[in-house]
Amino acid sequence: MKVAIIGGTGYGAIELIRLINKHPYLEIGTVVSNSQAGTQFSEAYPHLLNIVDLSLETFDPSELSKNNEMVFLATPSGVSKDMVPQLLKAGIKCVDLSGDFRLRSTVEYESWYKHSPADENYLNQAVYGLSEIYTENIKNANLLSNPGCYPTAATLGLLPILKTSLADYKSIIIDAKSGVSGAGRGLSLTSHYGEINENIRAYKLGAHQHIPEIEQTLSDEAQTPITISFTTHLVPMTRGIMCTTYINLKDNISTEEVHELYDEFYKNKPFVRVRPIGNLPSTKEVLGSNYCDIGLHVDPRTARLTIISVIDNLVKGAAGQAIQNANIMNGWDEQTGLSDIPMYP
Amino acid sequence: MKVAIIGGTGYGAIELIRLINKHPYLEIGTVVSNSQAGTQFSEAYPHLLNIVDLSLETFDPSELSKNNEMVFLATPSGVSKDMVPQLLKAGIKCVDLSGDFRLRSTVEYESWYKHSPADENYLNQAVYGLSEIYTENIKNANLLSNPGCYPTAATLGLLPILKTSLADYKSIIIDAKSGVSGAGRGLSLTSHYGEINENIRAYKLGAHQHIPEIEQTLSDEAQTPITISFTTHLVPMTRGIMCTTYINLKDNISTEEVHELYDEFYKNKPFVRVRPIGNLPSTKEVLGSNYCDIGLHVDPRTARLTIISVIDNLVKGAAGQAIQNANIMNGWDEQTGLSDIPMYP
Amino acid sequence: MKVAIIGGTGYGAIELIRLINKHPYLEIGTVVSNSQAGTQFSEAYPHLLNIVDLSLETFDPSELSKNNEMVFLATPSGVSKDMVPQLLKAGIKCVDLSGDFRLRSTVEYESWYKHSPADENYLNQAVYGLSEIYTENIKNANLLSNPGCYPTAATLGLLPILKTSLADYKSIIIDAKSGVSGAGRGLSLTSHYGEINENIRAYKLGAHQHIPEIEQTLSDEAQTPITISFTTHLVPMTRGIMCTTYINLKDNISTEEVHELYDEFYKNKPFVRVRPIGNLPSTKEVLGSNYCDIGLHVDPRTARLTIISVIDNLVKGAAGQAIQNANIMNGWDEQTGLSDIPMYP
Amino acid sequence: MKVAIIGGTGYGAIELIRLINKHPYLEIGTVVSNSQAGTQFSEAYPHLLNIVDLSLETFDPSELSKNNEMVFLATPSGVSKDMVPQLLKAGIKCVDLSGDFRLRSTVEYESWYKHSPADENYLNQAVYGLSEIYTENIKNANLLSNPGCYPTAATLGLLPILKTSLADYKSIIIDAKSGVSGAGRGLSLTSHYGEINENIRAYKLGAHQHIPEIEQTLSDEAQTPITISFTTHLVPMTRGIMCTTYINLKDNISTEEVHELYDEFYKNKPFVRVRPIGNLPSTKEVLGSNYCDIGLHVDPRTARLTIISVIDNLVKGAAGQAIQNANIMNGWDEQTGLSDIPMYP
Repeated sequence: MKVAIIGGTGYGAIELIRLINKHPYLEIGTVVSNSQAGTQFSEAYPHLLNIVDLSLETFDPSELSKNNEMVFLATPSGVSKDMVPQLLKAGIKCVDLSGDFRLRSTVEYESWYKHSPADENYLNQAVYGLSEIYTENIKNANLLSNPGCYPTAATLGLLPILKTSLADYKSIIIDAKSGVSGAGRGLSLTSHYGEINENIRAYKLGAHQHIPEIEQTLSDEAQTPITISFTTHLVPMTRGIMCTTYINLKDNISTEEVHELYDEFYKNKPFVRVRPIGNLPSTKEVLGSNYCDIGLHVDPRTARLTIISVIDNLVKGAAGQAIQNANIMNGWDEQTGLSDIPMYP
Repeated sequence: MKVAIIGGTGYGAIELIRLINKHPYLEIGTVVSNSQAGTQFSEAYPHLLNIVDLSLETFDPSELSKNNEMVFLATPSGVSKDMVPQLLKAGIKCVDLSGDFRLRSTVEYESWYKHSPADENYLNQAVYGLSEIYTENIKNANLLSNPGCYPTAATLGLLPILKTSLADYKSIIIDAKSGVSGAGRGLSLTSHYGEINENIRAYKLGAHQHIPEIEQTLSDEAQTPITISFTTHLVPMTRGIMCTTYINLKDNISTEEVHELYDEFYKNKPFVRVRPIGNLPSTKEVLGSNYCDIGLHVDPRTARLTIISVIDNLVKGAAGQAIQNANIMNGWDEQTGLSDIPMYP
Repeated sequence: MKVAIIGGTGYGAIELIRLINKHPYLEIGTVVSNSQAGTQFSEAYPHLLNIVDLSLETFDPSELSKNNEMVFLATPSGVSKDMVPQLLKAGIKCVDLSGDFRLRSTVEYESWYKHSPADENYLNQAVYGLSEIYTENIKNANLLSNPGCYPTAATLGLLPILKTSLADYKSIIIDAKSGVSGAGRGLSLTSHYGEINENIRAYKLGAHQHIPEIEQTLSDEAQTPITISFTTHLVPMTRGIMCTTYINLKDNISTEEVHELYDEFYKNKPFVRVRPIGNLPSTKEVLGSNYCDIGLHVDPRTARLTIISVIDNLVKGAAGQAIQNANIMNGWDEQTGLSDIPMYP
Repeated sequence: MKVAIIGGTGYGAIELIRLINKHPYLEIGTVVSNSQAGTQFSEAYPHLLNIVDLSLETFDPSELSKNNEMVFLATPSGVSKDMVPQLLKAGIKCVDLSGDFRLRSTVEYESWYKHSPADENYLNQAVYGLSEIYTENIKNANLLSNPGCYPTAATLGLLPILKTSLADYKSIIIDAKSGVSGAGRGLSLTSHYGEINENIRAYKLGAHQHIPEIEQTLSDEAQTPITISFTTHLVPMTRGIMCTTYINLKDNISTEEVHELYDEFYKNKPFVRVRPIGNLPSTKEVLGSNYCDIGLHVDPRTARLTIISVIDNLVKGAAGQAIQNANIMNGWDEQTGLSDIPMYP
């Protein structure tokens, strides 16, 4: 099956290409980059020399629909909202990796993203692609909205305890740490080596656009409005996200009980690995893979649960989950093409 | 004034030497390293060639007292508790950088440090050297117990709000991130480059020996027992600690009000810099210096205060604060020899 | 085909497992680690949880021969020389990733490796597995000696020019830079994070055990004894080797002519990519892949050729080339299981 | 003595401010930044909060001359050539950290820097500030041209052997490695964290503008024209330069003999430390300091000398050497304000 990628020179697109290259049923038909149309891909990315030597194309929905059955949009926020309607009309299924179709509320979108939202008709069609949770809806999606990197790690870590009545919904604090690739390949002081290396920096306190996305999922699943504290930090590494999440337990249940609950919740979910008690995941242990690893610890002194969840932000947090969703949409095993062992060290 | 350093080949000792070299009134008399006695210092540390070419000595309290007026102990925990009594008897003032004299309770010490505590007579003499808070006691100390790196960053960040009645003491969560030098120069997989680089790792959940130290200070200052959640993470950088601390506010006071309160609290404390609103400190912005920088944000949606406090773990978190305390003990300006600008980038 | 791995908890073994997992014809039969026999693999390496949950075994040649058709030895130097004879007698083909069978001269081995060499009978059987150069010999090998990481990058970079009469053999200087994983997972100050990070260090000047290995190959191919200057540097990164190689040209031929010569030399070698003129490879551009990328520049001012050759030291410099050689030994396409795109960024 | 800094928001200027702050006789009078005039310094650099809270000014030579006795120009190449004449006319001594006054030949400047050169009248006045070599000339300089970072490390490493008749001038190869801060704070893909981290990259082969500067000094000192091979590499670290330099010896003299020669050459030069035989310097061992450390090794197999020279590119390679030169110009001890121990780790 031929697929197109739009937003061709960003890190998200590059990771899609890496993963599609391993996929037994997918093949790259077209790569679109309006800003660099006409150049060879391997000029922007010499690591692709002799492997992917496509020429970058401009965006043309009817051309795309002739050559491709599916499109992955790896564009900055505010771009895909205008492309997706044209693509759907041309009959191509869309997997959007940007934030444009993640929030159902246009008011929330405008308030957090600071620009105009997508058309409500399309927002209503969009299926939120947190693969482990919304598998059934994803099967029938024509417009798949792929979750953000932070929301993937945060919600996979929180949902098992949240779906019980054991925790205090008002007490949720998510302290998130990310590698720099999450900010993309664009140039800014916050991705300048001299400013990032040997440094840790907190940013966008109370203002990160992933806050409403996380709250939407948590509220849906808990069936009650949930407000969270969410802090993001930039860590001197290229890939990886860790969420350290705190939630108060109503009763003083043990780490063992919580662990069992998580094990049960994810027993048929191959990409979520609940670590044995006493074993906490680090980001490198999922590097380059589609895994989300989760470690758990209840502190009996405070009756508080600490959840450590880690992903590779470019794989499970972006391109990998997009492929996983494409697998589900096509009726294939969700692991197809995604069975790589994490690269360690 | 000649001073001795014990524990001479660790990172703490090396940093003491770097700082004493800049100090107008202090001079290194003796460096003790039982494990490497007899070798030249610059063999272990070539960066000291032609600068500090002392020979390493064995521990001999009477010899030390002849040549030195003060001793800095930068030894692993469990070592200084036996040396300090001998040194005090020989008439030398001690600044202990290890954890041996930090906890007043021997029961707590044994429970968290897993070995036998110091003699209570000496514990009672020890003055806890959080310089900005206990200045008056420090002036008269003969045995100064220098705070841990995490406790310094955490308590300086929390005390101003804690000393009011505005916050909920039960809600304190400290999410701490540290560079690798905090673990010292000893060899272990957790300081192996291949395991640390491009990785973030949580460790010792609910079991870190700095927990009771932080709780002791917070409880003293709040005059009520306080229990905290405290999580430590290893970040791929050499120096720097950031504490991201969360505490619920009773009333919905604003960031501005909290900021004013912190500004007032630290107005005469040159090493604590409260950042302007909207400006969050990063660890590199205090690198190599004795500053503790603090950023503040109240999220009106959750009525929760987030405090970002950063230090260089080897300076304000160890050797720098030790010098600051020595300045106070000697009646000098606390900034003497410590006025370096952070090294950026 | 089932294969065994000996030396199971080092970085070389871990990388073999990552690659074998992707290979369509190979399967891991047994993993041997004398030091950690009896433990589960995923205890030492949590990233393998739920993927490779084998128990580590002790070395037993007859047991190994029952379950496996081939053995990869990823042991420290001085270990495989005693294991290989037993394995060959038990009828299993061996791919040795250590240095034990690389040097034909036992005198040279002892002089550079500082311990006793392998039995000459076995040295004579060993085929040196520089895959692109010795393909024909490799096809029939029972004992394959896999090249060192530095020699792979250095010789692939030099051979095309060396096989002409255009260069001055006496002028070869190889300035090599390596990530830290090349030194393995063992503990030492030279792999301590605090000593490596933000640092570059030259080591083993004129004494590196890869010198005679490089000289042996160059001398064989040039059919004249060649002596080189070879300097190794440790760079603060986990994976990757770059050789910057200098050689004087007899006549002032152009970069274009040299480039054509290299293109021709490697035209049927899928894993060697000669970069276009003006385009120099960086190590990240081959990360996680089996490629060796080569950039070329002739400086007309000095009539000197500079060759930049890069590999991932754990893939083309170790486990990847071992799989490539196993492919050739088994009559499969050499690219089988090795077609991953480099992971970028 | 009040001094001004022009080019106020680059890394060179920031480092000047850090060092001037420690200097007993120098004080910052004015900081000029045309691009950010009017803003407070600590807005661009929060690490300077409460320490240097000057407002950035526009360039005005007569104002500068009223308040300052000396100017440091830390501007990009092509800028100071027009400012310096105005400043000299206004009676202020200039220390230029850019490349504008380093090459005596305007033809060479245009050919390597690709823009128009400074006025020859001023080029003739400029004294090249390699402090250890041109001390006498520096004493009387009104226009001091501060050497480039690479040339400082390269020439200090080479000059002692070059000033003998023992080496072959035609054989010089300098393989240089630099941290990223050398490229400044400007935004480009080559300083983007995702592209630099976990990567080593060679750049500007045969085209680096420091080549003619190095050749000019070597030719002057050897009294014969010298052409070099010079390769620059970007290493994933913020600060530090290492030059690994190769030169053929005419006779097979020993490492000991070369070592003695270097020791003698630098015996009264406190900032150049010739390491004991067998001890090679790493960049971290000079971090934050004005030292240039040199290690030496003669390979008897090839009669080739390898020289390892390291500096902190922002200190001895820029701001530190500028202060050292200012000390000499003012008749102060050259070490004034520069006696910091390297920051390790």
